[in-house]
Amino acid sequence: MVVQTVVDSLAEKLVAYRRELHEYPELSMHEVETSKRIRQWLTEAGVTILEYPLEVGVVAEVVGEKSGPTIAIRADIDALPIKEESGVPFSSKNDGVMHACGHDFHTTSIIGAAILLKQRRAELKGTVRFIFQPAEEIAQGALYVVNAGVLEGVEAIFGMHNKPDLPVGTIGIKEGSLMASVDRFEIEIEGIGGHAGIPNNTIDPIIVAGQIITALQTIVSRNLNAFDNVVVSITQIHSGTTWNVIPERAVLEGTVRTFQTAAREKVPELMKRTVEGIASGLGAKAELKWYPYLPVVDNDAALETITKETALELGYDVVVAEKSPAGEDFAYYQTKIPGFFVWMGVDGPKEWHHPQFTLNEDALIVAANYFSSLAINVLNQENFGK
Amino acid sequence: MVVQTVVDSLAEKLVAYRRELHEYPELSMHEVETSKRIRQWLTEAGVTILEYPLEVGVVAEVVGEKSGPTIAIRADIDALPIKEESGVPFSSKNDGVMHACGHDFHTTSIIGAAILLKQRRAELKGTVRFIFQPAEEIAQGALYVVNAGVLEGVEAIFGMHNKPDLPVGTIGIKEGSLMASVDRFEIEIEGIGGHAGIPNNTIDPIIVAGQIITALQTIVSRNLNAFDNVVVSITQIHSGTTWNVIPERAVLEGTVRTFQTAAREKVPELMKRTVEGIASGLGAKAELKWYPYLPVVDNDAALETITKETALELGYDVVVAEKSPAGEDFAYYQTKIPGFFVWMGVDGPKEWHHPQFTLNEDALIVAANYFSSLAINVLNQENFGK
Amino acid sequence: MVVQTVVDSLAEKLVAYRRELHEYPELSMHEVETSKRIRQWLTEAGVTILEYPLEVGVVAEVVGEKSGPTIAIRADIDALPIKEESGVPFSSKNDGVMHACGHDFHTTSIIGAAILLKQRRAELKGTVRFIFQPAEEIAQGALYVVNAGVLEGVEAIFGMHNKPDLPVGTIGIKEGSLMASVDRFEIEIEGIGGHAGIPNNTIDPIIVAGQIITALQTIVSRNLNAFDNVVVSITQIHSGTTWNVIPERAVLEGTVRTFQTAAREKVPELMKRTVEGIASGLGAKAELKWYPYLPVVDNDAALETITKETALELGYDVVVAEKSPAGEDFAYYQTKIPGFFVWMGVDGPKEWHHPQFTLNEDALIVAANYFSSLAINVLNQENFGK
Amino acid sequence: MVVQTVVDSLAEKLVAYRRELHEYPELSMHEVETSKRIRQWLTEAGVTILEYPLEVGVVAEVVGEKSGPTIAIRADIDALPIKEESGVPFSSKNDGVMHACGHDFHTTSIIGAAILLKQRRAELKGTVRFIFQPAEEIAQGALYVVNAGVLEGVEAIFGMHNKPDLPVGTIGIKEGSLMASVDRFEIEIEGIGGHAGIPNNTIDPIIVAGQIITALQTIVSRNLNAFDNVVVSITQIHSGTTWNVIPERAVLEGTVRTFQTAAREKVPELMKRTVEGIASGLGAKAELKWYPYLPVVDNDAALETITKETALELGYDVVVAEKSPAGEDFAYYQTKIPGFFVWMGVDGPKEWHHPQFTLNEDALIVAANYFSSLAINVLNQENFGK
Repeated sequence: MVVQTVVDSLAEKLVAYRRELHEYPELSMHEVETSKRIRQWLTEAGVTILEYPLEVGVVAEVVGEKSGPTIAIRADIDALPIKEESGVPFSSKNDGVMHACGHDFHTTSIIGAAILLKQRRAELKGTVRFIFQPAEEIAQGALYVVNAGVLEGVEAIFGMHNKPDLPVGTIGIKEGSLMASVDRFEIEIEGIGGHAGIPNNTIDPIIVAGQIITALQTIVSRNLNAFDNVVVSITQIHSGTTWNVIPERAVLEGTVRTFQTAAREKVPELMKRTVEGIASGLGAKAELKWYPYLPVVDNDAALETITKETALELGYDVVVAEKSPAGEDFAYYQTKIPGFFVWMGVDGPKEWHHPQFTLNEDALIVAANYFSSLAINVLNQENFGK
Repeated sequence: MVVQTVVDSLAEKLVAYRRELHEYPELSMHEVETSKRIRQWLTEAGVTILEYPLEVGVVAEVVGEKSGPTIAIRADIDALPIKEESGVPFSSKNDGVMHACGHDFHTTSIIGAAILLKQRRAELKGTVRFIFQPAEEIAQGALYVVNAGVLEGVEAIFGMHNKPDLPVGTIGIKEGSLMASVDRFEIEIEGIGGHAGIPNNTIDPIIVAGQIITALQTIVSRNLNAFDNVVVSITQIHSGTTWNVIPERAVLEGTVRTFQTAAREKVPELMKRTVEGIASGLGAKAELKWYPYLPVVDNDAALETITKETALELGYDVVVAEKSPAGEDFAYYQTKIPGFFVWMGVDGPKEWHHPQFTLNEDALIVAANYFSSLAINVLNQENFGK
Repeated sequence: MVVQTVVDSLAEKLVAYRRELHEYPELSMHEVETSKRIRQWLTEAGVTILEYPLEVGVVAEVVGEKSGPTIAIRADIDALPIKEESGVPFSSKNDGVMHACGHDFHTTSIIGAAILLKQRRAELKGTVRFIFQPAEEIAQGALYVVNAGVLEGVEAIFGMHNKPDLPVGTIGIKEGSLMASVDRFEIEIEGIGGHAGIPNNTIDPIIVAGQIITALQTIVSRNLNAFDNVVVSITQIHSGTTWNVIPERAVLEGTVRTFQTAAREKVPELMKRTVEGIASGLGAKAELKWYPYLPVVDNDAALETITKETALELGYDVVVAEKSPAGEDFAYYQTKIPGFFVWMGVDGPKEWHHPQFTLNEDALIVAANYFSSLAINVLNQENFGK
Repeated sequence: MVVQTVVDSLAEKLVAYRRELHEYPELSMHEVETSKRIRQWLTEAGVTILEYPLEVGVVAEVVGEKSGPTIAIRADIDALPIKEESGVPFSSKNDGVMHACGHDFHTTSIIGAAILLKQRRAELKGTVRFIFQPAEEIAQGALYVVNAGVLEGVEAIFGMHNKPDLPVGTIGIKEGSLMASVDRFEIEIEGIGGHAGIPNNTIDPIIVAGQIITALQTIVSRNLNAFDNVVVSITQIHSGTTWNVIPERAVLEGTVRTFQTAAREKVPELMKRTVEGIASGLGAKAELKWYPYLPVVDNDAALETITKETALELGYDVVVAEKSPAGEDFAYYQTKIPGFFVWMGVDGPKEWHHPQFTLNEDALIVAANYFSSLAINVLNQENFGK
């Protein structure tokens, strides 16, 4: 059940903004026109743009009439290399690029929140910084803007992702881990190649790969707590180029997802032990290469109550947020300062990253309302920032 | 210890022929110039060319002065797609093609045997057919010439392969299996692809592959007799295209070598059972595709004595031929008529198929002597062909 | 922080009762003297004993002055086949039997709650039934008393387990799954035995076992959701009787723990598929035998608030209850009626089932207070039982 | 086709001796009465008994009229712990003990050979020593008599085993490996035991065992030559004592058979590498214990011709001896001096070690003839012993 707290004119404006962004999606780190549009719309609304050394992305600020600490609201602005098949009249005009994860929705909603906060400055006890971050899809944008200094002086950060399986007006909220850490690994197995009829003169890397694949299942099934939520997926294996020669090497690649930082830290060591031990047992050498990618989105427990109460106060429904095995680079901000990330119901027919992804635009004003009120409520908390 | 039984002029001629063949190697089924040269040299020596519907390869015949059955001597004539690095002055002039398996030696020696038999027609009780076969390296030539009818009326067939690790003047002879059957297989595993963080919505084909790889080791280790000499090699595995998606399928390829036809027949059924059962146990589907390639080179026991005695009579050394895990399409002839295949020592520094493969040309006249005398001896056996 | 709400005389009495029970522990389904003592102490306090067809165990009831529904409080009363090494002066006099899981504490505390409720009948709007259940340790007692009819007319049931790692005065409370479902399985693999040197005449069951062990790891690592908390443990394997004969069969045994009934229902089917498929792939037969043992202890969400509020009202600390991979046959009652199970802090130095298990007896009166107040509070809820 | 070269009276005597031995079988190292009988019968025939420090077993000698070297003929004399079910009238009177491997036949035949050689001393150019060895079935007897000095001064040794699948009058003869080396191994896996629901606090030894079982298959399938005839059989695995506790350790046992000493030497090192590497990869420790048992029965090539010619000269049939995966402690003698072991056809309905094992007694005189003539022929060879 949604209570409209703003005039329809803003809701209409947000729909128009969102459709324009949707028509002109841009890939990660190429959000040049998107950044220009955000900057223009905020400027038109009288919201102050902050200048940081960023080629893409926009940072803005609304300063309350009462003094207080600074918090940030983050929206991600990039699109995906997917060819749109949604059939909406404002479909992508950039061929092969699509806002298939709804970042156009995030961007527009947070512009809406900025506009509302500009209007509600009298209630605002402190400052709200708006971070329109590029390159979430390639997990580089948060790092990029943090390195530019956008978190300086910020006490807490808030963000959201649209959720197609929740109705408009429902917000998924929970403290603790919400989205998975995402890491990538490679395993290189070095054997000795040779004649397929003379295996005894070789060290067969495919045999080693087979044993490593089965042994790695025990990371999850035996080496971790039943309450750790860990996934180890080997997603690629390649070895050999012809049918009658035993190859010299095999290469595997994959990803690990966890929801507990402690588990995340254990996995590479366990995998390394397994990979090297199994290989040595079969006379080969194997190396695990670990590429850290994204930490766990881990919501600050102290912020849970205010995020829930704000939603209820606005007449929105609150559900316990379901964890997602996907990653989110909002997690990077949370390694620096307390943060809270929520699911915003958008009632869409398809999953994220689907060429037919769409959402219900009524959610734009819901999200704008929510984040503007949340900012006011957070900053009005008695002890916040102390 | 080699006894020279022919005048040097033939030996010199064979060296010249072999070097010319070596300079102009041709790939399998493309032995056009090679065929022309063989035809010309045989014609010059007065050996009768037989006409069969063959685009490459040559068949010739010497008819003895005494009537009797027909036997065949086979030489293979094709070269390999290898860039020669032997450094000999008569190195390949066809770039990237090389007689790296010594088929130039086989061809020339058997031309020599034909020339000698032409001279020794008085001793010959029957007919000797010379089969200069194309495309041994791709296991198609024997089938090609047999289909053209070259074995019609032939009672037995003889052949050889040079052996770099035997000295010139030594012949490796043994009845029974000598070279491996060679078959190819593919395994296709069909799972269900999906999000790398949600494996429970997928059937992971890489897991299935890992279990199949380990389970297939038991074909040799448990399902076959300790006296079966079988090799099952998985030489390729490919699955997946990126790091964060569980793939839908995995494809494996490999080869099986056996030295017993009974074992050869058991293996595909055992593999099929294993592949299908393991896959079903993990909720996937897997299919074994079996591509028969080459039977076992299996020497006729009744011919062993004459092949040994001929060698000893000429003063050559006889050793028990070591089995080789390589294949030879001479095996096809043996599925039709009795045959015997020997190792001819050529004292070479390198293995077959090596870019520096060379051999001692003294072996040319040894082999020419041996096969001409062998033909005479075989046909003079009291009961031969009855 | 513990608030004493009863006179010391009850606290002293409970300590005496508990020590007497501790001195005379009885094994599951043999709690004859224990039952006599409970019956006597309740009778002395004026609590009504209900007669059910039970050879061991006691059921009693306190009827409030105001009419209302009936709820139950359950205590388990059996001991373990462990030789006590705690060193307490009231150590077990039944050699080899010990209250090493603190059921003496549970029994005494609930006797205390009954005594208190008898005194507080004026506040009680309905009836409280006390179920002193035998045979929890062998997962048979709950079934035994439910079959005798003790749940008839009961709207909800409450219970607890002592928790050594929580301080006295702290209660662990959470809705949903708290303790694991516990099931047992056996896997019988039928091969063909024979001469250890002639494996090809056998179907080696140890090979099949090896493949099944590794394949079963994928139940947890691949077939279940990352948020399912499932453990599949193979705890026994036995095959073979001598060193030079391949055995005919192998037998494996183990247990599965889950915290979600949906996951619990999926596991046997997945295991059966795996076990049978792998065996068939290797030419053997294998059978999964599944012995359901205990469901998940799954706390009713609607009862969470009252359980927390009662604790806080008495001045006790509430923490979110940690899940335990152990099982509890309290789960059986919850398959019949709503139930809630809590952790009661007892500040003990050792884990359950340890020969040196002890606990802080101050917790007796805490638990007695808590369950008496909880019963009053639950029955005074406006809509309870409607 | 069998040519009788001795008078029937000896044949009859041998049948009587054999039946008496068959009635009174004795287990390995307990052949006291058997030794007395052998000693008595040889003494009656005038054959000289040699005294060695042996509690069981008999050594005798016939010295030829012409001087020359010494050779030995060995018979094994022990029986098996099998309850006889053959139904012959002279069935075992020692309950649970049976000559189920035909050592009564071996013993009697070689007594026959001694009697014949005593008669043929004029033809004998040298000395023949008869070794009636105890304890072949437990692989200790050859070592026992060799340590007593029975091979001193002996140039070569001959022996046989009856073969039920060969007809009487047929002898299986081949140089090189005939019977397998037999070794025993144990694998001890040390993990960490614990609660079946908390595997992350354990190192599960059953998991390690599963991976080791599958990995050890690659010893035969990948690490050895296709022409090596090796069997690695794991025949026992035991781990765990109950259904709800992860055990601390697993123990495996098995045997390795080879037919090439080189392969035999490679296997323990390969197994050790595999066992230790796999265990370390899974965080456990594992140890391979290797118990050498029996070398390969490896017939001296230089003796093949004389063994064949003797058989043919007597009118017996010679076949190429089939290899057996069983072991024979005749192999020990062959590690000291040249030896030759043959199969003697006995036309029996059942395999060795079968409770219904019987044989055709016509073979007694065949074997007596063969070994007496073989001894004469060997010693009459021009260069023998020089």
